[in-house]
Amino acid sequence: MKTLNDYANIVNRRLAEIPAVIPEGCFEIGEMPWLLSRSMRYSLEAGGKRLRPSMLLAAVDMLNGDGEDALDFACAVEMIHTYSLIHDDLPGMDDDNLRRGRPTNHVVFGVGQAILAGDGLLNAAFETMLNHACLRPERSARYLAAIREIARGAGVTGMIGGQVMDLHCERSGIADNRALEYIQYGKTACMFVYPLRAAARLCDAGEADLKALSDYGRAFGLLFQATDDLLDVTGAQADMGKTLGKDAESGKLTCVSAYGLRGTQERVARLHSEALAALERFGTRGAFFRELVDSMVSRTH
Amino acid sequence: MKTLNDYANIVNRRLAEIPAVIPEGCFEIGEMPWLLSRSMRYSLEAGGKRLRPSMLLAAVDMLNGDGEDALDFACAVEMIHTYSLIHDDLPGMDDDNLRRGRPTNHVVFGVGQAILAGDGLLNAAFETMLNHACLRPERSARYLAAIREIARGAGVTGMIGGQVMDLHCERSGIADNRALEYIQYGKTACMFVYPLRAAARLCDAGEADLKALSDYGRAFGLLFQATDDLLDVTGAQADMGKTLGKDAESGKLTCVSAYGLRGTQERVARLHSEALAALERFGTRGAFFRELVDSMVSRTH
Repeated sequence: MKTLNDYANIVNRRLAEIPAVIPEGCFEIGEMPWLLSRSMRYSLEAGGKRLRPSMLLAAVDMLNGDGEDALDFACAVEMIHTYSLIHDDLPGMDDDNLRRGRPTNHVVFGVGQAILAGDGLLNAAFETMLNHACLRPERSARYLAAIREIARGAGVTGMIGGQVMDLHCERSGIADNRALEYIQYGKTACMFVYPLRAAARLCDAGEADLKALSDYGRAFGLLFQATDDLLDVTGAQADMGKTLGKDAESGKLTCVSAYGLRGTQERVARLHSEALAALERFGTRGAFFRELVDSMVSRTH
Repeated sequence: MKTLNDYANIVNRRLAEIPAVIPEGCFEIGEMPWLLSRSMRYSLEAGGKRLRPSMLLAAVDMLNGDGEDALDFACAVEMIHTYSLIHDDLPGMDDDNLRRGRPTNHVVFGVGQAILAGDGLLNAAFETMLNHACLRPERSARYLAAIREIARGAGVTGMIGGQVMDLHCERSGIADNRALEYIQYGKTACMFVYPLRAAARLCDAGEADLKALSDYGRAFGLLFQATDDLLDVTGAQADMGKTLGKDAESGKLTCVSAYGLRGTQERVARLHSEALAALERFGTRGAFFRELVDSMVSRTH
């Protein structure tokens, strides 16, 4: 069985090829400006565990699908995740100067270029999937279904919807548990749920597999966010370059602000059970996902 | 034969249905926040001639294709065009407070929300095309090819590439004719070339039709920008709510700054001939596109 690290290496090798690196000063029509390539790569290569694309690939393996065929879809998921971080960090949004210990994209390239680097990554994610999808016409229908899942997860009822609600609540001082649930599902869970659904589409899996992967993605994503909220308060992330307790100070809506420390710990335990229950139908083939959610919970111990 | 106005009405009717209008205060999981819907619609419904989607639909009619089937692709093109205007107007980009005589998106909704409205429109454009494409599996291959054309036109070697070069040249004071050609092809012409190519893909047209439409789109797009640059200097657009000679003052790279008034007029005449030549193979069926380019040229007389 491949580990998270194995999948991350596979994703990193492919990401190094797309989008193309352009020599400085070049502006042939039909090529990408080198400045755009450089600013997109700056954030794409800033590290990160490649969790979302790795989970997509692991799901394809679990369903006995074609991992090579799924690779460009996995890379697209990481490109979308990266664009969302670039735009999230902008002035007018979270206005952060540091991400993973490095200056954020707009600090290095300027606000205008950072907006365009984000736009470029989102569009390039679709270009990457579509370029791959046009290679094998006999698989067109499942490719379309997979791209659509990823678009929904990233979209106005998914990740972007969650970001809008987050920004709106922060600006308006709204502290409502329904809003919190909307934000955490949209902003965090959707980019686990829908890439896993895309994996199922690529494997032409049935409705039961699709539902089980959706349920796991939802529980895992909400748990991921809840443990993040917990660690933000308990300060255990200080060594990961994150500003200690930033969210707690800013009045941002978090699990801890909504449910308290004890309530958040109970939430984590409940979501952990839900994630494991969703994996039952996969038996031993679900080992990667079982270990993944166990390791996420153990972060808070 | 339908007119530009007929097509624009068809597009506007469909755009009124997507993306959905959400009642204020609603935040059910799986629905779009009303604030996102409102900010996207604010710019989508700000007027405009719906030139790009109308040309896509007219090309489908010219090739005896299925106009109804192409409608969501046309709407997606307008959504992408609209997102590019929202982001272009942002502080850090052109920093414009007015567009078509109305306050720009970020003036009304704030910078953060305007960034997300743009992101939302780009993603929703793909969602719209993909939702439609998943309805008829037997057409999957041509839908994929059409979506890919639109993604390329909007993408890092197309529109976004042009925007990056434009921003870079303005900031660095670069005034180079090769850069100008790159910018005008990428920023303006690509969103004519590739939607027309998408129309050809939807009709499963051959390479010769594809090339003729690309050539027309390129000539028309460059001509559209050149006449805009001319009008910006001669001030004939003052009554259209545009700041008189803004580009001329800002030191922005334009056809007039690069080639002079006379050179730009000659460029318009040359592009006019090229556009008409590209239409020859379509005979009388090319009347819509012939009249369109004629009317564009006559703006400058």
